[in-house]
Amino acid sequence: MTTRAAGGDRITLKHGAGGPAMRALIEQLFVKGVEDPPGSVGLSAMDDGAALPLGDGRFLVLTTDSHVVSPLFFPGGDIGRLAVCGTVNDLAMMGATEVLGLTCAVVVEEGFARADLARVHASMREACREAGATVVTGDTKVMGKGQLDGLILNTAGVALTRKVVRDNGLRAGDRILVTGTIGDHGFSVLVARNGLELDGELRSDVAPLNGLIRAALAAGDITAMKDPTRGGLSSALHEMAEKSGVGVLLEEKAVPLRQEVRAAAELLGIDPLQVANEGKAVLGVRPEAAGRVLAALRAHPLGRNAAIVGTCVLENPGRVVLDTGFGKRLLAEPEGDPQPRIC
Amino acid sequence: MTTRAAGGDRITLKHGAGGPAMRALIEQLFVKGVEDPPGSVGLSAMDDGAALPLGDGRFLVLTTDSHVVSPLFFPGGDIGRLAVCGTVNDLAMMGATEVLGLTCAVVVEEGFARADLARVHASMREACREAGATVVTGDTKVMGKGQLDGLILNTAGVALTRKVVRDNGLRAGDRILVTGTIGDHGFSVLVARNGLELDGELRSDVAPLNGLIRAALAAGDITAMKDPTRGGLSSALHEMAEKSGVGVLLEEKAVPLRQEVRAAAELLGIDPLQVANEGKAVLGVRPEAAGRVLAALRAHPLGRNAAIVGTCVLENPGRVVLDTGFGKRLLAEPEGDPQPRIC
Repeated sequence: MTTRAAGGDRITLKHGAGGPAMRALIEQLFVKGVEDPPGSVGLSAMDDGAALPLGDGRFLVLTTDSHVVSPLFFPGGDIGRLAVCGTVNDLAMMGATEVLGLTCAVVVEEGFARADLARVHASMREACREAGATVVTGDTKVMGKGQLDGLILNTAGVALTRKVVRDNGLRAGDRILVTGTIGDHGFSVLVARNGLELDGELRSDVAPLNGLIRAALAAGDITAMKDPTRGGLSSALHEMAEKSGVGVLLEEKAVPLRQEVRAAAELLGIDPLQVANEGKAVLGVRPEAAGRVLAALRAHPLGRNAAIVGTCVLENPGRVVLDTGFGKRLLAEPEGDPQPRIC
Repeated sequence: MTTRAAGGDRITLKHGAGGPAMRALIEQLFVKGVEDPPGSVGLSAMDDGAALPLGDGRFLVLTTDSHVVSPLFFPGGDIGRLAVCGTVNDLAMMGATEVLGLTCAVVVEEGFARADLARVHASMREACREAGATVVTGDTKVMGKGQLDGLILNTAGVALTRKVVRDNGLRAGDRILVTGTIGDHGFSVLVARNGLELDGELRSDVAPLNGLIRAALAAGDITAMKDPTRGGLSSALHEMAEKSGVGVLLEEKAVPLRQEVRAAAELLGIDPLQVANEGKAVLGVRPEAAGRVLAALRAHPLGRNAAIVGTCVLENPGRVVLDTGFGKRLLAEPEGDPQPRIC
């Protein structure tokens, strides 16, 4: 992967935005000098999680995410639902759809309302129920008033699989599928944060995707997967293209967008392709399997708006070319999410 | 386990101190309504981690901790070393001493010095080397200036074992062993935080215990283990006694204490028994094996000051009785650690 200068001697918001500055920081600071365990997908892969061989043909997939979303409660979800789904989805993106267990580590500010903590916890339980997952261990820390803005949740998760799916397996000819509409989560949080009034109901898509991905994996040969969280579909495609050494031709008109997201995007001047999703996946699929996988996705309640949105090509490796219907242009790689604390 | 009123409608520092208020909050809020996976040690056990059956006689042990220590750097260690050792030690306390992999999730404040992050990371690598562990996946989030006091690290970890050790297995007659001096970590952080000048060198004991525990497990029948972190030896013994349904008779004069810790304890008016340790374990051992396990501990560089400090009895179940040498008195269960952000 290309290492770009992360720049400066201080951490900036860009270093957490999911784009090139964050990846450079991780490569330069965290990955350097760490040797992956033999036979594993480890830190150097910078994939959605790690895959560790258990010596009997099975892999243990392990992933972690801290959640710092602001506000904590937003239309369609809250930090608790986000934490469970984020971890379940990262496991699913590696091909591991049966969750063995989740951890939950709470860091909370002194003076935080117990009722809000109870509400977050109820939401985690509901998301766990949907995912067939269980929180099996946890940790609780309290920081003094003013030392933390409210609440941070960290969830890690483990799941087993016999076949690991990576984010670097795209091949020329593969079709690119998205499992539904794009931008719903990011704009829901931004609209809630800024107290904007919009027509229609804009809701986060935050949902556990392991059931949907299980159906897709059973339907056909999936070469690569990634969930387009921070930095949105654009960041995810850029990272997949770069790691796979292919170009991606993205058909703008094929990307499913809700009318409410179009409206919010215009109002805020933010590209929906760059905004986080929390209940969507990007799949690379062999061309002969694309129809079957699309049908399997659409047959699932969380995949009704799934679509084929692009094709992998030999030209422009590591780049994403946008076909607007009127012409083609190189899609600039975003710095990551245009706003902080989106997840 | 007894549920005590956690009190009030707001989170207080006590809810993160490792004592009864924290345990009550966890029971009332987080454990309620969560069903442990079949055959597992899950959330309801409130042990150092979870143990999940893999279906082939092996258990996957999973644990998590967030670290909020202040200051980030202290004599003998820093937040990075603490995060790695805390997780490695929680795995070891469940009998799982071969670490499969660690996660590392960083939440950092905008404006944090890159050099400090690099220093923390180097320290994590060194602790991993000592433990034979590897960070295999991670996450990076940035919060705006003033939204977080510096840096939080979350580490989760996984390890395999065929025999799970619990914290609730003490039986009357068992001897209680500690693997070395008590209070070193807590007082080192407090002295650093308050800029106190003391004679002698007070250093945190933060160290990965998996090698030491491997030697102890090979030497004899260990009935229960726990690392005396927040709330110190007193909290750990109270929790083990309560869960096991035995009383613990603790011989005060047998508890190994450094002269520097005695001095700091007097100066600060804080009981060394209530202060966090990050490189020590409490073991319950069948009486006939106590000598062998003690010898194995003392033969290891991290166990040179190991000692037999008490005995499990039928009287006073759930209580700890302190034998001062002049008489016996009930040791009051601490609220947890007397100071916040000790780990």
